Amino acid sequence: MINTKVKNSTPHKVVIVGGGFGGLYAAQHLAKAPVDVTLIDKRNFHVFQPLLYQVATGGLSPADISSPLRSLVKDNKNTEVLMGEVMTIDPDKQLVKLRYREISYDSLILATGVTHQYFGQDSWSEKAPGLKTLEDALEIRRRVFIAFETAEKELNPEKRQEWLTFVLVGGGSAGVELAGALAELAHGTLKDDFRHIKTSDARIILVHSSEHILPTYPPNLSKKARASLERLGVKVQTGTRVIDVTENTITLKQGDKVEQIQARTVLWTAGMKASGMAQILAESTGVDLDKSGRVKVTPNFNLPNYDNIYVIGDLAYYAYIKGQPLPGIAPVAMQEGQYVARLIQSRLKEKIIAPFRYIDWGNLSVIGKHAAVVDIKGFRFSGFLAWFIWLFIHVFYLLEFDNKLIVMTQWAWSYLTNSKGARLITTPGEHPVIELEDEPSVYNLST
Amino acid sequence: MINTKVKNSTPHKVVIVGGGFGGLYAAQHLAKAPVDVTLIDKRNFHVFQPLLYQVATGGLSPADISSPLRSLVKDNKNTEVLMGEVMTIDPDKQLVKLRYREISYDSLILATGVTHQYFGQDSWSEKAPGLKTLEDALEIRRRVFIAFETAEKELNPEKRQEWLTFVLVGGGSAGVELAGALAELAHGTLKDDFRHIKTSDARIILVHSSEHILPTYPPNLSKKARASLERLGVKVQTGTRVIDVTENTITLKQGDKVEQIQARTVLWTAGMKASGMAQILAESTGVDLDKSGRVKVTPNFNLPNYDNIYVIGDLAYYAYIKGQPLPGIAPVAMQEGQYVARLIQSRLKEKIIAPFRYIDWGNLSVIGKHAAVVDIKGFRFSGFLAWFIWLFIHVFYLLEFDNKLIVMTQWAWSYLTNSKGARLITTPGEHPVIELEDEPSVYNLST
Repeated sequence: MINTKVKNSTPHKVVIVGGGFGGLYAAQHLAKAPVDVTLIDKRNFHVFQPLLYQVATGGLSPADISSPLRSLVKDNKNTEVLMGEVMTIDPDKQLVKLRYREISYDSLILATGVTHQYFGQDSWSEKAPGLKTLEDALEIRRRVFIAFETAEKELNPEKRQEWLTFVLVGGGSAGVELAGALAELAHGTLKDDFRHIKTSDARIILVHSSEHILPTYPPNLSKKARASLERLGVKVQTGTRVIDVTENTITLKQGDKVEQIQARTVLWTAGMKASGMAQILAESTGVDLDKSGRVKVTPNFNLPNYDNIYVIGDLAYYAYIKGQPLPGIAPVAMQEGQYVARLIQSRLKEKIIAPFRYIDWGNLSVIGKHAAVVDIKGFRFSGFLAWFIWLFIHVFYLLEFDNKLIVMTQWAWSYLTNSKGARLITTPGEHPVIELEDEPSVYNLST
Repeated sequence: MINTKVKNSTPHKVVIVGGGFGGLYAAQHLAKAPVDVTLIDKRNFHVFQPLLYQVATGGLSPADISSPLRSLVKDNKNTEVLMGEVMTIDPDKQLVKLRYREISYDSLILATGVTHQYFGQDSWSEKAPGLKTLEDALEIRRRVFIAFETAEKELNPEKRQEWLTFVLVGGGSAGVELAGALAELAHGTLKDDFRHIKTSDARIILVHSSEHILPTYPPNLSKKARASLERLGVKVQTGTRVIDVTENTITLKQGDKVEQIQARTVLWTAGMKASGMAQILAESTGVDLDKSGRVKVTPNFNLPNYDNIYVIGDLAYYAYIKGQPLPGIAPVAMQEGQYVARLIQSRLKEKIIAPFRYIDWGNLSVIGKHAAVVDIKGFRFSGFLAWFIWLFIHVFYLLEFDNKLIVMTQWAWSYLTNSKGARLITTPGEHPVIELEDEPSVYNLST
């Protein structure tokens, strides 16, 4: 049943919710189509998510990896941007409801992504922030640099070590890249900055539940990634699960062995949970969700009962290729966005296009400044060559961005000088100083 | 009475509170001296304050105008940095008290600066944020871009105009520069970004209490600055005082005329009030404060009763040159920092140095991208030449910074493309969406 309404008087109206890779690519591929497009996002900017870990470790500024949505689509004369949050959807009246607005649509594209999953322990989220948004990255940056500052002030050696212990939960790409960048920070960038601590004493522990980190890679690359991390001073603990997190401890279970680590900074990149949109959709349309809450779509990314609602990107559970769900990475979202943009146009012309084909550009993860692992169409690299390919591909994608020149200069500068200029502890409206609950004591340079 | 204690066993200990221009320059000029230096700041970074307005209007990122204090002094082997806030001072025991720490000193340099003054109406501070810190700049940035976003969504033309009205209180350098940048944003950068509003409809009103804006300049330059602002579309209202501020109005009084303006965004750069340190000092040492709360120092920047406590920068009231207090600008703070660093060293050697002389490098304010006013030692410029001098001097000062290359590239880029890439609405931990309290209504692109 194709219920896409084609009105004669006004153009077909496409509403896109989410300005990530999926939503943005859909908008870009509708720019010349005879449709009106409304792009809705909670934020006024698009984020180049693969580089969030660089913001989290002070290497890049938020603006370096973001671009205002309005700038990105300003030449699309058929497109408007609306900053707002979708509360409900009425699929029969074809309305998207914001808090104080209703917006009508003919076709609706939903691309609001996923967030982390704390395996039912939502209270851990405050103690162990994730890394999905720019705000997350700023919060991690704040915690990391506050930890070093506090260690510098702390006189009790045990507590000092607590502040210098960083546990990262999740050995996927984000966790591996974050661990590598943290290790370089502690062992390189910061090493001459402190007087009372040796930042190279920092313990960085990467905890992963299954046997191999980077589970989407072939095992030999996964092993090389592990070796690269260990060379940088990261302790990699696989086959290990988290059973508790408190303000200054994390409890781990490896087989039957339970271990408690004193750590003030726990960062979380594990698990996956669909954004709230999936639940909204399930309630209003009855669509099935997978165990992570993602929306089970048809081969055309539609809901089974609504051919004018499309779900793409991380939010979609799409398992029609090799029987495996497509991974939650930027190239998948981009290709899906492009596909549904073409599909909507072909349906308006009452034409049929070929089914979606995913072109797998492979996997890429960077580990510190000189190493990466790459798995591209059977070519598998690690080390410096892989790192170079990673850089090239990121530059290529960043070509979408206004500020590519800046980011490249910034990077070249960081690379050459080993400096990380963006390591500011900023917390608008809140006092950034964490003081210790110690007894007063006279503090001298020789301490 | 010189009670500077010179101990034989341990080096003379200098504690500096505040990592602005004054404190930082003092630290830099003590780098090679036979003293131990502790630099204390609430923040972990130094900010190039003259460019805060660029962050507030999305032209530069926080990290572009900031530098970690630790990086700046990392080659000073005698210097440690401590992140913390001073609660009290014990001048007799020579102790500075942080929340959970006491730090002893032989010489103490206080350089914690000033903040804005709401003329007794402290409740206005929430409605009309100032522009003294990086957090202030981010808050202003958030409000400015939220205002445009909300105007775009608003259907009621009156309310829409409310969101498009920006009132700036204070016609000093910060207010003038902010007004110029806002005008360029509305009339230039953003003009193709919106579909329902014309950003050039934005009203930007600069309110100033006395007759001439930029009161430290000669009247003819002040008039030229006013003309430049008016060319950019800013309405300049002199001889006008604020009598009330609410969430969406500001009430002004010009002579006997009282006028209420509907405006959602009010920004404040007027008035001056010493930071809390002045009060701490008055209580512990009995020193006199001026009407803005600044510390009245001796010709050597000491307290009358304590020759080992120095107060410099904006926090000091220093009126020994031409009977006028020195202005609260970066060059004054830098020269004072340098002077007290020399003075401390000379006193350790029991030598006498010449009294402080202030070298007046003049005044400089930039108005938009192509105009400025400059008053340097009798040479007075305005227009493009002045703007070029302004740029040169800023580059010169930024040479202290790690990231000068980046900032220059960023600027060149912004200048050439007229883009402002840093216009992100980020609010860690808080939802950035402001929704309107309207009745729901269907929202179409043609609205």
